Amino acid sequence: MLNKSTIKYIQSLQQKKFRDEHGCFVAEGPKLVLELIDGRSFECEAVFALPAWIQSNHDRFRELPATSLHEIQKHELDRIAAYASPNEVVAVFRKKTETPPVPCQGLCLLLDDIRDPGNLGTIIRSADWFGVNQIICSEQTVDMYNPKVVQSTMASLGRVNLYYTDLLHWIGQNPGCQVLAATLDGTAPEDIPKSDPTALIIGNESAGVREALINASQGKVTIPRLGMAESLNAATAAAVLLYAFTVGR
Amino acid sequence: MLNKSTIKYIQSLQQKKFRDEHGCFVAEGPKLVLELIDGRSFECEAVFALPAWIQSNHDRFRELPATSLHEIQKHELDRIAAYASPNEVVAVFRKKTETPPVPCQGLCLLLDDIRDPGNLGTIIRSADWFGVNQIICSEQTVDMYNPKVVQSTMASLGRVNLYYTDLLHWIGQNPGCQVLAATLDGTAPEDIPKSDPTALIIGNESAGVREALINASQGKVTIPRLGMAESLNAATAAAVLLYAFTVGR
Repeated sequence: MLNKSTIKYIQSLQQKKFRDEHGCFVAEGPKLVLELIDGRSFECEAVFALPAWIQSNHDRFRELPATSLHEIQKHELDRIAAYASPNEVVAVFRKKTETPPVPCQGLCLLLDDIRDPGNLGTIIRSADWFGVNQIICSEQTVDMYNPKVVQSTMASLGRVNLYYTDLLHWIGQNPGCQVLAATLDGTAPEDIPKSDPTALIIGNESAGVREALINASQGKVTIPRLGMAESLNAATAAAVLLYAFTVGR
Repeated sequence: MLNKSTIKYIQSLQQKKFRDEHGCFVAEGPKLVLELIDGRSFECEAVFALPAWIQSNHDRFRELPATSLHEIQKHELDRIAAYASPNEVVAVFRKKTETPPVPCQGLCLLLDDIRDPGNLGTIIRSADWFGVNQIICSEQTVDMYNPKVVQSTMASLGRVNLYYTDLLHWIGQNPGCQVLAATLDGTAPEDIPKSDPTALIIGNESAGVREALINASQGKVTIPRLGMAESLNAATAAAVLLYAFTVGR
């Protein structure tokens, strides 16, 4: 049985302000919740699930205090879940303690004001696929704990480290890193000499990479265009560049 | 001034049933509407726009009968627009007459039940970027005239031809085409000999490519995984494969 204040608390975590205040975020759905618990990147604070689901997954929660495991009814789940049914479980996890970014090794991504949560989620998942585990985000980039980001990353959220900082400052602090801005008028990836470490800047969905960041970069990279489209979706461009700078090398 | 039946008609085009019945679809926003008009792939049936916008874009509608250009007020626009403001224009276009697919030349995509409209829109835009102008969709794939698809393709919708048909049948009719299914256990693109024409099958977001289609293919292709993510987003995988099979060759 869920009391009103718990319902209000979980609902409040849909908003960044309250996620920051409580240091927590929400994940939904059997697959994602179990993957995040198994991944151990985030401490699980509480699980709210239907009785049948808890029964069949009980052994996955051995390390969770019994008081954190809540059996709830379908109508209660519907009140705390933000995503469409069929759903069976909602869990609250603690955000990771923010640690300063480590120097870029191999390849990393810099995100300049990615605003769409679906795009950020997809970029995190693609980075995880191509073995890139560090993403530096501008302070205006959408929050990594936004529920839509969490749901679209699948469990990659626990395996890729995201840092929010001033990108110009980061570039200044990493003089040994080849920084390349993804633009529409640059060099094809295959014509850029391999250099390690390399950071690729992916720009905002409408405005692209800011002029100041382009100027602070060592060069511009463009995915060759063979057809007529004006641009690629930001998450798509990030994935193609990740491929071109890893497997494609 | 918009009458009730016009409002109802435009709203009805949000649903496939009525788009099929009327042979029309809706596009919104200055950029998209102007691009579709200039692209001439779709006949424009009517434009509903704010007076100021019509005034500053009047020369773009020279070929449109004056009776098809409707000045409306903001509160009327809000009733017929499905997307968030700021918006200035909603237009109704005629769907293209469906013509049977031409034999695959170069590279084409086969979509096996892509259900998310955002994914289909992104795939169309990526195909247009990489110069691939034919996409064969399974009958269960989301409608190309779904408003979310239309809004996310930008004007690529007019430059890429989509056909809805039985994919197994299509493969049977195209014996000279190398068909490759995108799966998680196939060969890397760089290890597959170049063959022209080639068709790449992109599978459903959850289920992947159907077994029957894999069996009907000449092989399986997989984007090499260097990290830990379980899979890539379908639209992302399509874009990376389009790159690998065009620029990457």
